[in-house]
Amino acid sequence: MSERVELAHNAAGRKVPSVVNGRPQIPYLGVGKYQVRGRKAAPPLRSNKDYPDNGDKRLPDLTTALKKGGLRDGMVISNHHHLRDGDRVALMALEAAAKLGIRDLTWFPSASFPSQKSAIDLMQSGVIHHIEGSMNGPLGDYCSQGKMRGTGVLRSHGGRWQAIQDGEVHIDIAIIAAPTADAFGNADGSHGKSACGSLGFALADSMYADTVIVVTDNLVPFPCIPWQIQGNNVDYVVEVDSIGDPAKIVSGTTQITRSPDRLRIAELVARFMREAGIMRNGFSFQAGAGGIALAFVDYLRRMMKEDGVKARFVRGGSTRYLVEMLHEGLTDYILDGQTFDLDAVKSIASDPRHVPTSPFTSYNYHGKGNFASMVDAVVLGATEVDVNFNGNVVTHSDGRLLHGIGGWQNCLFAKCTILAVPSFRDRIPVIVDEVTTLTGPGELIDVVVTERGIAINPQRQDLLDAVKGSNLPVRSIQEIKAEVEQICGGRPAKPKLGDRPVAVVKWVDGRVLDTVWQVG
Amino acid sequence: MSERVELAHNAAGRKVPSVVNGRPQIPYLGVGKYQVRGRKAAPPLRSNKDYPDNGDKRLPDLTTALKKGGLRDGMVISNHHHLRDGDRVALMALEAAAKLGIRDLTWFPSASFPSQKSAIDLMQSGVIHHIEGSMNGPLGDYCSQGKMRGTGVLRSHGGRWQAIQDGEVHIDIAIIAAPTADAFGNADGSHGKSACGSLGFALADSMYADTVIVVTDNLVPFPCIPWQIQGNNVDYVVEVDSIGDPAKIVSGTTQITRSPDRLRIAELVARFMREAGIMRNGFSFQAGAGGIALAFVDYLRRMMKEDGVKARFVRGGSTRYLVEMLHEGLTDYILDGQTFDLDAVKSIASDPRHVPTSPFTSYNYHGKGNFASMVDAVVLGATEVDVNFNGNVVTHSDGRLLHGIGGWQNCLFAKCTILAVPSFRDRIPVIVDEVTTLTGPGELIDVVVTERGIAINPQRQDLLDAVKGSNLPVRSIQEIKAEVEQICGGRPAKPKLGDRPVAVVKWVDGRVLDTVWQVG
Repeated sequence: MSERVELAHNAAGRKVPSVVNGRPQIPYLGVGKYQVRGRKAAPPLRSNKDYPDNGDKRLPDLTTALKKGGLRDGMVISNHHHLRDGDRVALMALEAAAKLGIRDLTWFPSASFPSQKSAIDLMQSGVIHHIEGSMNGPLGDYCSQGKMRGTGVLRSHGGRWQAIQDGEVHIDIAIIAAPTADAFGNADGSHGKSACGSLGFALADSMYADTVIVVTDNLVPFPCIPWQIQGNNVDYVVEVDSIGDPAKIVSGTTQITRSPDRLRIAELVARFMREAGIMRNGFSFQAGAGGIALAFVDYLRRMMKEDGVKARFVRGGSTRYLVEMLHEGLTDYILDGQTFDLDAVKSIASDPRHVPTSPFTSYNYHGKGNFASMVDAVVLGATEVDVNFNGNVVTHSDGRLLHGIGGWQNCLFAKCTILAVPSFRDRIPVIVDEVTTLTGPGELIDVVVTERGIAINPQRQDLLDAVKGSNLPVRSIQEIKAEVEQICGGRPAKPKLGDRPVAVVKWVDGRVLDTVWQVG
Repeated sequence: MSERVELAHNAAGRKVPSVVNGRPQIPYLGVGKYQVRGRKAAPPLRSNKDYPDNGDKRLPDLTTALKKGGLRDGMVISNHHHLRDGDRVALMALEAAAKLGIRDLTWFPSASFPSQKSAIDLMQSGVIHHIEGSMNGPLGDYCSQGKMRGTGVLRSHGGRWQAIQDGEVHIDIAIIAAPTADAFGNADGSHGKSACGSLGFALADSMYADTVIVVTDNLVPFPCIPWQIQGNNVDYVVEVDSIGDPAKIVSGTTQITRSPDRLRIAELVARFMREAGIMRNGFSFQAGAGGIALAFVDYLRRMMKEDGVKARFVRGGSTRYLVEMLHEGLTDYILDGQTFDLDAVKSIASDPRHVPTSPFTSYNYHGKGNFASMVDAVVLGATEVDVNFNGNVVTHSDGRLLHGIGGWQNCLFAKCTILAVPSFRDRIPVIVDEVTTLTGPGELIDVVVTERGIAINPQRQDLLDAVKGSNLPVRSIQEIKAEVEQICGGRPAKPKLGDRPVAVVKWVDGRVLDTVWQVG
């Protein structure tokens, strides 16, 4: 099904296809080695004369909007994933396209989720040709099995911006689910029954797509304030009963892990940051919304209070733990890319110190810098990390593609990148000889913290020096790996992989970092 | 000095040059008649690898920044005018260029002011070739005399965005005065000793220029919140002692006119809006910061209270009168393009209902609609209005170019456009047979309010009907004109104009609406 293409070895020694979905590719050249040239993608010029003077861009339904937007076979349709597993709009659009008899769409979501698994039916019936975007769960599994007609393209949040901005992906029609909007198309994520907080992932779509459709279940009179999406970029507005399931859009409350091992990891990360001198007045950090990350924030917060330390900013994915830090005066600002629980949504809706960001400000590598490299420390997860500190977040050790990259690659540019991972999961070691799929180069990963100790990348002598003399369990990564293999009964079995690429992993500069191979 | 070019008659019957500063021009075709095609200007792609990881883009001085930005002869240099007559940064940049021996620059400010009159010396010494942008006072006069080497190009605020966005003006280096900024280049206008409120006029420059330099006298640790200008678009940051004279950046307080005639005009405008049914719950209006406009707001506010009416939004130019309306619950929002006095600056800095806008959201005609056409009524001034309701805001009856267009042209798209003008000034009638310079087509001007009565455009039968039976002094524009000519002793003398174009007036779609001719 997927094209037969030549494979080349890239600078990381990985075999990658030279053509993906008909487009020639440049293999990964190394961190900071690719020199981009040329100009940004240029959206079509429009004229006010072709839009209603009274600003009312409403159409009766999504089908009408797709037809007026010129939907045709083979187009690229985009969605954002701020409604996460609760989103109803993406499938609504794809199913409307199916009813119109459209075929061979490229679906370009910022991420797809298990609740969207009926996209598989649309791939089987030919409506969707393939997905370019994170595939979490069943859709990734489907791709892994080689059933998708095209090749999956996995990009980080910043890489998605880069691809749109650089013209590598041209979005024909963007469909933007909006928890609040006005008839002009101004849209906000932080208010309404389907509130999700930031709408940053949809910003590039709104700026660069030929046609932009806003879909909302909470229409307010102009102006919708704040406008995270500007109506001046929007063609049509469609009202629907519900854009998503609130229970699955945000967690009621995010939960700290209860696993003693994971709590230990979290505490070690916080202690490392304190001992290494990263936790100091005016510092900054980013952590996600997973159980370990939340526990880490809680530990760090306590240490900050003990030491009288205040952060200048913390980066979200935001949760109530960050919001509490803001309220306690432990940080001046939350710079927030996505908003994970109800407290965080309430905060971003009302507190000017809780600021929505976009992949442009935070993650785009083809810009004049971004926020990610200014963060003092970032705490990330991984499915695997190898003895060279290379990380994997997209596949499991059995080779199956089950996760997206998210902001993970982009965050590796922080001043100190910490992977906080259990040393094994389901009796399968997490520390391996070589990651199944290279998602992040080891030279950017500084510290691996497991419940069995802290491994510091030998390239970071400064960090090794900083914690010398502390009582932290600093060990070599090989030593931790050996111990884990003893516990698990040896190295993980090599996955049985075919020789057909089913997806590629793009680096932040748009070059091909690795290949995901068909499983079995 | 300026090029010899052919002249053509445009759709308004005005003679306009077919080439301006070497670029072919399309004459004005009528309101909504020009069909733009093509794509937006595409800024060059950059890479984070070429910017500092720690986000610190500071350089020691503006000269260094201009040199690193590749300043060369003949380049286009832009500035914004939010610091108004208090700005020091534009001249600082132009003088730095002069010291570097640079010649033939096109200076592209969003507007220039009397305090910048030493730009005349730079034109005479050859550093500046010509100015494209509003020329208020001495610079306009200099242009009128035919002394500028190139042709002035007058654009509305929206037209300036359109010209940049459409690629008609390519900015090589944008120099952005920032009352607050961080070392990454995030910039805000609403805080700091030189606070000016909104920075919207600089937004296009920051997005489209090849090189962007932020100049600030109030550097704060990252992140500068809010960021009206995004550091991700900025190349260099320069700290200086002072970006401007606070006393001339904003008025301490804006003042209502004390002239009885002008108070009468203001009251008539407010009464017209009430009687015509425009002043109703959920309505919107825009008025400037001139004495009549302020008095109008004060009258309207009283009427709104009397009638229990609340606006959905009011548009700034904001002043304390609008801020008081916000505080009194008379409007939900202020949508603000520029901020005129200290109360307004304080409000935009702290009240989330006081929202900064940009020419993109408000005025750009080559977009998917804008805010201007959604405003129920706008109250504007004019230097002249003629019996066909055509308006002039750039020249006086003696032909001298003394004012910029500002948002005036863009605002004409409001549902009801009201010119509030004294019927004469210095014994020169304001209502004339034909405006000296056509700045706004009469078909978009609905009502002319003078101290001698209200003239409604015969094309607006709906408005004539709406005020029928009211006790408003509705009269024909010819009748008012005749009365004024009696008082002033006849029609104004025809200006002595040469046959050389010294500037052109662009319409909102970038086509040439009229020509400003050399005086004397």
